[in-house]
Amino acid sequence: MHMIGTSGAGDGHDAESQRKERVRFEHESLPQRVRFASGEAAAMVRAEVERVSASRVMVIAAAAEAEPAEKVTAGLRVVLRWSDVAMHVPVGVAERARAAATGHAVDCVVSVGGGSTTGLAKAIALTSGVPIVAVPTTYAGSEATSVWGLTEKGRKTTGVDARVLPRSVVYDATLTVSLPVPMSVASGLNALAHCVDSMWGPRADPIDRALAEEGIRALATGLPAVVADPSGLPGREQMLYGTYLSAVAFSSAGSGLHHKICHVLGGAYDLPHAQTHAVVLPYVLAFNAPAAPEAERRIAAAFGAGSAIEGLQRLRHAVDAPKALRDYGLNEADVEGAVQPILDAMPDGNPRPVTAGDLRRLLRSAWQGTDPRTMTDDEET
Amino acid sequence: MHMIGTSGAGDGHDAESQRKERVRFEHESLPQRVRFASGEAAAMVRAEVERVSASRVMVIAAAAEAEPAEKVTAGLRVVLRWSDVAMHVPVGVAERARAAATGHAVDCVVSVGGGSTTGLAKAIALTSGVPIVAVPTTYAGSEATSVWGLTEKGRKTTGVDARVLPRSVVYDATLTVSLPVPMSVASGLNALAHCVDSMWGPRADPIDRALAEEGIRALATGLPAVVADPSGLPGREQMLYGTYLSAVAFSSAGSGLHHKICHVLGGAYDLPHAQTHAVVLPYVLAFNAPAAPEAERRIAAAFGAGSAIEGLQRLRHAVDAPKALRDYGLNEADVEGAVQPILDAMPDGNPRPVTAGDLRRLLRSAWQGTDPRTMTDDEET
Repeated sequence: MHMIGTSGAGDGHDAESQRKERVRFEHESLPQRVRFASGEAAAMVRAEVERVSASRVMVIAAAAEAEPAEKVTAGLRVVLRWSDVAMHVPVGVAERARAAATGHAVDCVVSVGGGSTTGLAKAIALTSGVPIVAVPTTYAGSEATSVWGLTEKGRKTTGVDARVLPRSVVYDATLTVSLPVPMSVASGLNALAHCVDSMWGPRADPIDRALAEEGIRALATGLPAVVADPSGLPGREQMLYGTYLSAVAFSSAGSGLHHKICHVLGGAYDLPHAQTHAVVLPYVLAFNAPAAPEAERRIAAAFGAGSAIEGLQRLRHAVDAPKALRDYGLNEADVEGAVQPILDAMPDGNPRPVTAGDLRRLLRSAWQGTDPRTMTDDEET
Repeated sequence: MHMIGTSGAGDGHDAESQRKERVRFEHESLPQRVRFASGEAAAMVRAEVERVSASRVMVIAAAAEAEPAEKVTAGLRVVLRWSDVAMHVPVGVAERARAAATGHAVDCVVSVGGGSTTGLAKAIALTSGVPIVAVPTTYAGSEATSVWGLTEKGRKTTGVDARVLPRSVVYDATLTVSLPVPMSVASGLNALAHCVDSMWGPRADPIDRALAEEGIRALATGLPAVVADPSGLPGREQMLYGTYLSAVAFSSAGSGLHHKICHVLGGAYDLPHAQTHAVVLPYVLAFNAPAAPEAERRIAAAFGAGSAIEGLQRLRHAVDAPKALRDYGLNEADVEGAVQPILDAMPDGNPRPVTAGDLRRLLRSAWQGTDPRTMTDDEET
């Protein structure tokens, strides 16, 4: 699908290259209902639970979210409220929750919370098949994928199963206004990274790219709005909308170069997840975009900018995004050690080949926080 | 979702209005696999039939398409080949096909053809639940919807049922190169009308609009390419891709003003379907777009034009599209009679109110074939 060597026009009118572009892909649309209405979570949840004809509901919400969860699930026939939730869904937690669900003959799980809460609901659905109605309160995106994850003794196992995809997702922006601005920005940039990497992930197709473009448009609108007015609903709504699209696109396209780099850096040097993504993204974009005219065109258009990287940098500046890996615990000497593991994990279908020299240049630039636009091929490091 | 009174910028940068725009909708994604690969229909069909673990396949194809259908279904365990296909799926035809499917214990239907062929496969799935693998050979779009239709004594009944949505759709552009250019243009403009009306149909949401925008982009690329090189695959591929998106968006958004007008005109005056759509579309767009800034922005961007109507007119000119209803059998006196039936069928959610005077102006302009951009509110008729 990619045309190598054609520079993106950035204005959507590269008609000649579009005419020559061939259409060859496979895409799977997953069955899911999504509803957006600020302040109406309770009514939406009630309607969605009715749709699956459930009468014995299990509500999952961490203790900190007990109060909003109570409001959102008012009027349901709740047989079990569960607050034993932990990051990365430890197997022990999952097994206790599954046993409780079985013991109470639960026929629907309503989850109210972030990725870990949705993840526990998925762990229950994975073995029991009970339908999930998910009410996200962060911008994690897990609610729109059929990916599950469990951890045991520090090792994470993930898989894909149709049963864990929530039947319905209820997005109510009033539930997210309490998310502090720095966390909102980090979480939003993480969603943005899902969109960008969806342009060239191993299974990326034009539908993924169109949805990711729409997601970037929403996040680029929502992020500065949340920073300017953290309790305002319009920005929060755009963030949730962009999050949903980022998750749909990314789960179809699979992890591209950006996520492989961040995975290696996060695993080997214990860098903070969100900040690592925020710093690395512009360097990957600057590296790939010249060889990915469709991605360049779509991302630039979504940002309303002259080029993709210009749009991303403008947004990063507006929300005061993290700038350099050296600010987050990476040593200059660590750069060399990350090169080979990243090369070993290289995803299929990256728009241009990636050499050790390329990675060294990219990682060193990200470590220093230099302008990604100056990371030219000519420069030798 | 619509903001009345803001003119669309047409360049995607109306940031202020986007910030104020609220997100409130519900959207249902339907489960379907789609595959695009020119020249590879047989291998794709085999893989998709295997996915549903079928071993007793019924192949539906009209007699005229027996040869391509034979090639596409080579290597399958076919227990029944069915060629008794008719426009609008008469109930008698459906009942014979259902009885044959039951008699042969069919566990999968593979349809190879246009809307009527796909429609017959849906009629069988509606009562039996057998999975469909659809191989479209026109730009009708029925393969991507869960809408079924049957006719009895000239009356058409339609409905929506999850069982009739094909599990997989196999798009192979080599099967469409024999479609004559005039039919390709008419069919392509019909798909384009699905996209435009998806911007403001009664259930239209931003996801529908994003997919419709992508569909317009593909059709605007594909239509002139097919006219320039009817046997070339790149244009045909873009047409199939745009068709798929148009159907997904339209079946979610529902019929808007354009389709209500065409339905009344087609029913009352027996006008040709495709030409009616082709003529009426620019007048509806010129009427609605000033009150629908998001639609204006998206359609203009998809055409790569300064405005939505400018882009549509440029495309219509390039493919020599039908221009005036008076060329297709409508009398000037008929205009008045169409006004009230259209008002009676007015869809919810049109971006601006529609008066009898508005419709009179719109229909008279379409009858004459005058420039839709001159159809101003000031003009009294």
